Amino acid sequence: MRVAGKPMRTIWPEPDGTVGIIDQTALPHAFTTRRLGTLEEAAHAIRAMLVRGAPLIGVTAAYGVALAMRVDPSDAALEAACRTLAATRPTAVNLRWALDQMRRALAEAPPSERASLAWRRAGELADEDVRVNRAIGEHALPLIAGAARRVRRRVEILTHCNAGWLATVDWGTALAPIYLAHDSGIDVHVWVDETRPRNQGASLTAWELGQHGVPHTVIVDNAGGHLMQHGRVDLCIVGSDRTTASGDVANKIGTYLKALAAYDNGVPFYVTLPSSTIDWSLRDGREIPIEERDSSEVTHLGGVRLTPADSPAANWAFDVTPARLVTALVTERGICPASEGGLRRLFPERR
Amino acid sequence: MRVAGKPMRTIWPEPDGTVGIIDQTALPHAFTTRRLGTLEEAAHAIRAMLVRGAPLIGVTAAYGVALAMRVDPSDAALEAACRTLAATRPTAVNLRWALDQMRRALAEAPPSERASLAWRRAGELADEDVRVNRAIGEHALPLIAGAARRVRRRVEILTHCNAGWLATVDWGTALAPIYLAHDSGIDVHVWVDETRPRNQGASLTAWELGQHGVPHTVIVDNAGGHLMQHGRVDLCIVGSDRTTASGDVANKIGTYLKALAAYDNGVPFYVTLPSSTIDWSLRDGREIPIEERDSSEVTHLGGVRLTPADSPAANWAFDVTPARLVTALVTERGICPASEGGLRRLFPERR
Repeated sequence: MRVAGKPMRTIWPEPDGTVGIIDQTALPHAFTTRRLGTLEEAAHAIRAMLVRGAPLIGVTAAYGVALAMRVDPSDAALEAACRTLAATRPTAVNLRWALDQMRRALAEAPPSERASLAWRRAGELADEDVRVNRAIGEHALPLIAGAARRVRRRVEILTHCNAGWLATVDWGTALAPIYLAHDSGIDVHVWVDETRPRNQGASLTAWELGQHGVPHTVIVDNAGGHLMQHGRVDLCIVGSDRTTASGDVANKIGTYLKALAAYDNGVPFYVTLPSSTIDWSLRDGREIPIEERDSSEVTHLGGVRLTPADSPAANWAFDVTPARLVTALVTERGICPASEGGLRRLFPERR
Repeated sequence: MRVAGKPMRTIWPEPDGTVGIIDQTALPHAFTTRRLGTLEEAAHAIRAMLVRGAPLIGVTAAYGVALAMRVDPSDAALEAACRTLAATRPTAVNLRWALDQMRRALAEAPPSERASLAWRRAGELADEDVRVNRAIGEHALPLIAGAARRVRRRVEILTHCNAGWLATVDWGTALAPIYLAHDSGIDVHVWVDETRPRNQGASLTAWELGQHGVPHTVIVDNAGGHLMQHGRVDLCIVGSDRTTASGDVANKIGTYLKALAAYDNGVPFYVTLPSSTIDWSLRDGREIPIEERDSSEVTHLGGVRLTPADSPAANWAFDVTPARLVTALVTERGICPASEGGLRRLFPERR
């Protein structure tokens, strides 16, 4: 998508052999790019959330393996790199998926070829992510176009956290159909959940929608239910960090509350996801490990302490929305009910 | 309740004829008191939320009338003072209730007696608030004691915003039974919703629980659903800014989302309120006017800008929880179902 009018991706190979990224912790106030030159820098970028969003984490990890292979292309180094990268974030399953892809590409190759092979494969995964997200956008676009025909005014869409192009290599998942709708002349407006504690909505979603010229309004996470009660939301679209084979959706903490409000008010609640986000090994969302992050993300904001010095805080990063609250899942292969049957019809090879 | 071990109220008459308050905008980092000497200072204290919480707003308004009567005890000045104070905050109904009480006390009195009469009546309203809240606490205490017997471990209570003693003259509404439970030796722990955008949970509820020694943990507003899904909440207790005759509850924005999660997970959801918070003229919560506050409360925090400079924000201060999601209402007269029948049995004079 565009930054100040110039097309960009969130991650790219630099001519000097490093990996370029946008430092997303500096947004929305500063647009800064960084270069990752080592496995440790790639792992740090994921852990410290310079890059975030399940699809982008996966591609960054793939490049991390490639950077490691340049230093030591041995089997032991490959395994160590995958272990280090897998440990950076526990909930997103794309990370493990991307590492599996890299392992598969490199395992049979002689060590001398692994560095260049890994670099190429990471680039392919990045390109594939762009294609997949564009396809998700095209499959979800009719949902917005249909709402536009139904309501005959501006379509009001609520999203939580950032599942935009900044969370992927390009296009985004939840925001991909919104960009396509806006670009095709459909009048859309996005309610952007702030998304405490890390404020990815207020800082990233608002920023990327603004850069692309999509009308939007930032609200606190508490406000979405009130808007839905008053008919101010036509549909919700969110992303997913891990989706079970039965259609339960782990996504940013607070997604479950918005899904409850949508259900209570008859507002469709769509989850967009690349199939790499599906964990076919799980049938119950309660089995998804939920990352607990440092409590300082809750107690401090921009260097300002928000809580009394003696008050403890807790910080779960994700929650699980049960499939019964999800109107439909949108993948790169199309739309399906949030159910085992729905997913398996789209992905028959998983039967 | 206690501040650094010393018993305090949130509002008190000073010997010099001014009204002492705690500047709640400086908490939790600084404990500052202020003196209100004029109607305009009282109105400003409510508008700028130096004092907040429906019951405390009412008592502050009553003192505001008393301060106005000292300058000009005429009928016209009385009406003007009530108009100015009523316009400070639109949602809380106690404010109107308290002004009605003052009008009733002063209307028939000769102007020469109004200043001293108003000062006395405001003090009586403050004392009455303390008695009412203590009674609410005693009526709700068995709900916590019952949970303690049932779960046979620490009782986990979730609350939203601040309905503690800082929101009233003393004791609080939602926190009154928690203080009584803690003081009587019941092991309680409170999940404190941060309560964006003004963070009354993170700054006020956490502070007052900490000052009183009640174990608590601050969480973002997004987290409560996840906790309830995992059996980490035994009951929710919140306050109310306005309750309809049918039991619909206007309270801080986001309360509705927590009520939905409680309902979805079989967690009891209790609303505590002085009867002065009941609007007997309304039967449908959707008729309650919802205050929209300045968007800077969303876009900025502690001087830090959270959103891109070009991104608009919206800021509704309250939402309405329908009676069907409320397990019971707790008033100074006892507990009742959140329904017209339930309320009228407790308040038969309203039939």
